[in-house]
Amino acid sequence: MKKIEIVQNILEANEFIAAQNQRLLDKHKIFAINIMSSPGAGKTSLILQTIARLKDKLRIGVIEGDVASTLDAEKVKVEATAVAQINTRNMLESCSLNANMVSHALQSLPLEDIDLLLIENVGNLICPSEFVLGEHKRVVISSLPEGDDKPVKYPMIFADADAVVINKIDFLPYVDFDIAAFQKALQGLNPEVKIFQVSCKTGVGIENWCSWLLSALKANS
Amino acid sequence: MKKIEIVQNILEANEFIAAQNQRLLDKHKIFAINIMSSPGAGKTSLILQTIARLKDKLRIGVIEGDVASTLDAEKVKVEATAVAQINTRNMLESCSLNANMVSHALQSLPLEDIDLLLIENVGNLICPSEFVLGEHKRVVISSLPEGDDKPVKYPMIFADADAVVINKIDFLPYVDFDIAAFQKALQGLNPEVKIFQVSCKTGVGIENWCSWLLSALKANS
Repeated sequence: MKKIEIVQNILEANEFIAAQNQRLLDKHKIFAINIMSSPGAGKTSLILQTIARLKDKLRIGVIEGDVASTLDAEKVKVEATAVAQINTRNMLESCSLNANMVSHALQSLPLEDIDLLLIENVGNLICPSEFVLGEHKRVVISSLPEGDDKPVKYPMIFADADAVVINKIDFLPYVDFDIAAFQKALQGLNPEVKIFQVSCKTGVGIENWCSWLLSALKANS
Repeated sequence: MKKIEIVQNILEANEFIAAQNQRLLDKHKIFAINIMSSPGAGKTSLILQTIARLKDKLRIGVIEGDVASTLDAEKVKVEATAVAQINTRNMLESCSLNANMVSHALQSLPLEDIDLLLIENVGNLICPSEFVLGEHKRVVISSLPEGDDKPVKYPMIFADADAVVINKIDFLPYVDFDIAAFQKALQGLNPEVKIFQVSCKTGVGIENWCSWLLSALKANS
């Protein structure tokens, strides 16, 4: 029981800092999205597609969370208004982004120049579900090659999502993925969730995703 | 620093129990493999292929680690000699299997009837790298649709692996995956690692993987 108490204290402290982050974001009229998925499901690709489609309408900042490397930040920084990199290193530090890391990243970003903040979490379907960051919406990407059983196997992260993006829809001819079964399992956990089918490779479905993002941003302002 | 000390104490306790697990396995002449990967990379598929090819030579037990559900255990129990299920639930419990969970699972398995124990960890490239379980070999599966940058982005789990299985090799025509770049990054972290290219769907490469497994088992006995 001791271990659980310690972890609960960590999570309470995290929620306190996340609330501070959200107040800072609201003060600067920044709408923030926490993007979570398995490794390689397409977080960076969705961010690049989103920036390509919305950069004439919005000033977009990105926080890149990675265990190691700056590969994703390098890809994103060409197009984004500003990018901050967080390296979480190993589990002794954290197995997901947390609110304190994001608080430090926010200090390094030009908040007055940002309308939309896309936070790319580390590739992990378990830990990020426990740590709020101060975001306004939580988005999970699930890609076709991973299989259609992910909501059943990792229910917590799907239950709390505002939107789920089914990516790599162009793989449908090559994989055994039952979209109806995936959606049914997901809606069983989370009846209100918005679901998008996209391919970040071909661009299919990105317009619908960006329309939702814009309307969610407007509803928040 | 306090948090890091607590985590280090947890890891030390884990190593102590892992050593007990390994002594118990050795006493029963069981060779144990810890199989780790992202969600959906093919852990269960590799286990099913391995059982199909080796079940006439070895009695194979399986420990199935999942956050939630018994989906994988249901698939495996038809073919394996014995299966134990561990559900890790949420991060308050653990974001990976740990030695204590495996210790309990071992108590539920008929150890005198098992030669090879395949331990399927939860889908996560971060936490399992920190927790040894008592296994004799550590195996990481990396699948083509995840992208070739995974060793750079999640170095710890690849640095400690005895073998890396590149799965879904049948996706090569459809994805942008540079096998040479993947291998170079991996060998930079881990020069001694064995690398296998397989497709659990078509069966390509499974024979090589099983030959290695058999020779590693023999070398251990």
